[in-house]
Amino acid sequence: MSGDGLSFPTSLGTSTAEEIRLLGRDLTTELMGRVGFGELAFWLLSTRRPTPAETRVFEAVLVALADHGFTPTAIATRLTYLSAPDSLQGALAAGLLGGGSRFLGVTEDCGVFLHAVLEAQEGPLPTDDDGWDALALEAVRATRAAGRLVPGLGHPVHKVRDPRTAVLVRIAEEEGLRGPHLRLFEAVGRVHEQVLGRRLPLNGAGVCGAALADLGLPVEMLRGVALLARAAGLLGHIAEERRRPIGMDAYLAVDRNATYVDPDGQESPG
Amino acid sequence: MSGDGLSFPTSLGTSTAEEIRLLGRDLTTELMGRVGFGELAFWLLSTRRPTPAETRVFEAVLVALADHGFTPTAIATRLTYLSAPDSLQGALAAGLLGGGSRFLGVTEDCGVFLHAVLEAQEGPLPTDDDGWDALALEAVRATRAAGRLVPGLGHPVHKVRDPRTAVLVRIAEEEGLRGPHLRLFEAVGRVHEQVLGRRLPLNGAGVCGAALADLGLPVEMLRGVALLARAAGLLGHIAEERRRPIGMDAYLAVDRNATYVDPDGQESPG
Amino acid sequence: MSGDGLSFPTSLGTSTAEEIRLLGRDLTTELMGRVGFGELAFWLLSTRRPTPAETRVFEAVLVALADHGFTPTAIATRLTYLSAPDSLQGALAAGLLGGGSRFLGVTEDCGVFLHAVLEAQEGPLPTDDDGWDALALEAVRATRAAGRLVPGLGHPVHKVRDPRTAVLVRIAEEEGLRGPHLRLFEAVGRVHEQVLGRRLPLNGAGVCGAALADLGLPVEMLRGVALLARAAGLLGHIAEERRRPIGMDAYLAVDRNATYVDPDGQESPG
Amino acid sequence: MSGDGLSFPTSLGTSTAEEIRLLGRDLTTELMGRVGFGELAFWLLSTRRPTPAETRVFEAVLVALADHGFTPTAIATRLTYLSAPDSLQGALAAGLLGGGSRFLGVTEDCGVFLHAVLEAQEGPLPTDDDGWDALALEAVRATRAAGRLVPGLGHPVHKVRDPRTAVLVRIAEEEGLRGPHLRLFEAVGRVHEQVLGRRLPLNGAGVCGAALADLGLPVEMLRGVALLARAAGLLGHIAEERRRPIGMDAYLAVDRNATYVDPDGQESPG
Repeated sequence: MSGDGLSFPTSLGTSTAEEIRLLGRDLTTELMGRVGFGELAFWLLSTRRPTPAETRVFEAVLVALADHGFTPTAIATRLTYLSAPDSLQGALAAGLLGGGSRFLGVTEDCGVFLHAVLEAQEGPLPTDDDGWDALALEAVRATRAAGRLVPGLGHPVHKVRDPRTAVLVRIAEEEGLRGPHLRLFEAVGRVHEQVLGRRLPLNGAGVCGAALADLGLPVEMLRGVALLARAAGLLGHIAEERRRPIGMDAYLAVDRNATYVDPDGQESPG
Repeated sequence: MSGDGLSFPTSLGTSTAEEIRLLGRDLTTELMGRVGFGELAFWLLSTRRPTPAETRVFEAVLVALADHGFTPTAIATRLTYLSAPDSLQGALAAGLLGGGSRFLGVTEDCGVFLHAVLEAQEGPLPTDDDGWDALALEAVRATRAAGRLVPGLGHPVHKVRDPRTAVLVRIAEEEGLRGPHLRLFEAVGRVHEQVLGRRLPLNGAGVCGAALADLGLPVEMLRGVALLARAAGLLGHIAEERRRPIGMDAYLAVDRNATYVDPDGQESPG
Repeated sequence: MSGDGLSFPTSLGTSTAEEIRLLGRDLTTELMGRVGFGELAFWLLSTRRPTPAETRVFEAVLVALADHGFTPTAIATRLTYLSAPDSLQGALAAGLLGGGSRFLGVTEDCGVFLHAVLEAQEGPLPTDDDGWDALALEAVRATRAAGRLVPGLGHPVHKVRDPRTAVLVRIAEEEGLRGPHLRLFEAVGRVHEQVLGRRLPLNGAGVCGAALADLGLPVEMLRGVALLARAAGLLGHIAEERRRPIGMDAYLAVDRNATYVDPDGQESPG
Repeated sequence: MSGDGLSFPTSLGTSTAEEIRLLGRDLTTELMGRVGFGELAFWLLSTRRPTPAETRVFEAVLVALADHGFTPTAIATRLTYLSAPDSLQGALAAGLLGGGSRFLGVTEDCGVFLHAVLEAQEGPLPTDDDGWDALALEAVRATRAAGRLVPGLGHPVHKVRDPRTAVLVRIAEEEGLRGPHLRLFEAVGRVHEQVLGRRLPLNGAGVCGAALADLGLPVEMLRGVALLARAAGLLGHIAEERRRPIGMDAYLAVDRNATYVDPDGQESPG
């Protein structure tokens, strides 16, 4: 320890000349070749080794969130790689920086929302669908009354039904991990029409947030799970940009159709 | 297709109202719950589904590279999270941006080096250790003569032996994937002393590069594998920073010991 | 225009083979050599060319915010440059990513706070100190009642008086630009003790926000001004890191004092 | 100083309870309101206060490089802001990350190239155009023979003449700062056709690198100057994205024209 009295505690990686430890285990004899990457990521986030059932649900979420094609984040990564091919890390980082409130934040927002409803609940949780529906109805009403959106509802492409939702619920059920967050989320899907006046699908990002919250991960870290998944997808985009580039065409699709507009609003040919 | 004639081809994610496809598979019926996250990441990088043997080696590498404690990148992530706790993606990106030539680049450098030696080889590859040693000796000599460093040798902490090296070679051997890049790397470990005049350990980052190259991943993407691994580790640091913060102390350890120096070089009390 | 009917309007840069335009001016004949960089930055943010008086206040703010030594953001930049010296842009970006709510957000928060108070004000604005004090008192009380902090008060180092505050007010006064945001901010400085029970200095980041809001810049962009100023400071840190590096020592100050802690809380020697 | 014996020297910002110093000056009495932002940025990069003549050339370069409309970096910033509007710093950082070798690196590459030629020169520098032409011819030939590109030649839009080049040379001449780097660059413009077999314009990014090198800035930091200039431009894009967004259209221009391609190469409708 330093003369400042400063010490820096950690439960993650430490090493000596002979040994590398991670999460209190010997990296080479206990982890490498014995622990999957998704399993380790869960462990790093929670300091708790997941069960095989938890790992399967967690990896299903990572797979669901890894890539959605030409999202704004994927295009940002491609354009950055076009401009600075010498810095793969910069292209990856640029894409991840789009992982904010709008396109990639629903997973966390949904987990936080469901968690808050459950935390505020006094007494035992519901034991049947009617009970969950009543709780969901109250939560949707309160959210609406506060002028906020209920996270996890609606999707620009999957307007009727998001195919990920039922599948993830089924996988969680198979693994005995369809817990209160998923139950409440499903109930939101059944009751929201009564309050909002129209039927919206439960979206994939939202169901992922519910499933992750049921795994006991800290809800403030759920955006991190989405970012990890997306990191794999963005690396796929960089690899593809190397094989069959589209970055230049994406740039030209905008630049060639630029139009100059006076600051006070008149258009003129670009 | 647009009137510009522009089209944007991809083999990654696409979707319609009813279906989401990824890598040419149905995301929900063929991938979620059936494919691990490491497996998917390999597939995204190479557009080829890895075998279980390949997945095990690939995940062993990801586990090996995920976290090394308070590296410069981990500290950068912690300090950025301290400054901007509202943007988890920014803290993650800041750490990944350190994934460049010096601390995280050895994996790629080593894969590229070994790959270039093998590509330049005319005729069949060696079939025994003597043959590999001769090839390695020639490569180390040529690298030294060109004034460049042989990547994958030496480590600031593991000065005699990096415990990851033998373990990863063993895992590859178990899976039938101890290929030419690993063989050549091992030979470099045996012969470099003849040229460099001192014995250095084959380091963990280097052996990871060799193993990944043997899996047939494009060597220009190996830094991406290290970044994916590190993303999990950095998320672990952010989660830990939430539970038991050290960012403020890390900042103060520097700031409190700042000393003002005249631009022309004289020190004065800070 | 494309067959998609998409067009991309902008009032910023456009060019033809012979001419480059920016903000509706000819770059080479009207801007280069005739417009200062601070002046152009203001113009880019607001699409309005500032007067010399406005430029002087704006540049005084940029100078005030450019660098504060070994801040968390500066250390993050230094550590990233240490890890990835091949990517200067990555080191700069890593530092800017700390420009969030906590260490660099006060300028924007303060501008937004003052602007909201003034916008909510019905009838004419106060014309003397008593009037400003009454308005400030009401605003501080309402903010306190809502459980929020009044931005721009207090500083960890300048506990009694932040030397930037009076100087920036004086410069604004000299230029005829001591407007309602600054007046209100000064009044907050006079009255907050009545509500909070202790006297705090008006800090430099806060007075910068007030001065920028008085210049008519959109308050949602004030964080951007702080980031631009900090970009210059961070480049200064990178240049200094090249001349006289401290990144390795900053890293070791943490890593050498690492202590392993069991996830459940027991410490053991690192 | 700490018990570790660590101290962190800096010539940039330091502060005490009463005073803030920057570059050895009192921030509030010597810098704020007295020093322009461009002037301060030069000082931070070089630890030397520039003369008014140097400041004018430096700011002319910053103005020249601030924005070029819908560049890949500007589009990346816009798309990131679309995805994560809560993190202005992330959108700015994403754009800066494109400041690498290809679209924003010419300024540094050109400065480095010219500087290396001058440094390698034994004996006095040329005193007339014939002398500069001879030196340039030799340098262009050697670069060509080594299979490298001569930086600063050619432009995708300004195919005959880049309007910035002559203007920046004139401004430097007016200020008595048309030094050896600019002279050599101009000579490259006159002689390269003899070697390359076709006439290319000296581009604006290149002339900026030459002018900055003549100001005595460290050539390894010239990319930083381009990044500072671009930071102002990118903030202009974010401000404009708030007023008149194009990010969603830019994203859709790509996503709507996506086509699925089998990994082995066959196209099918997207």
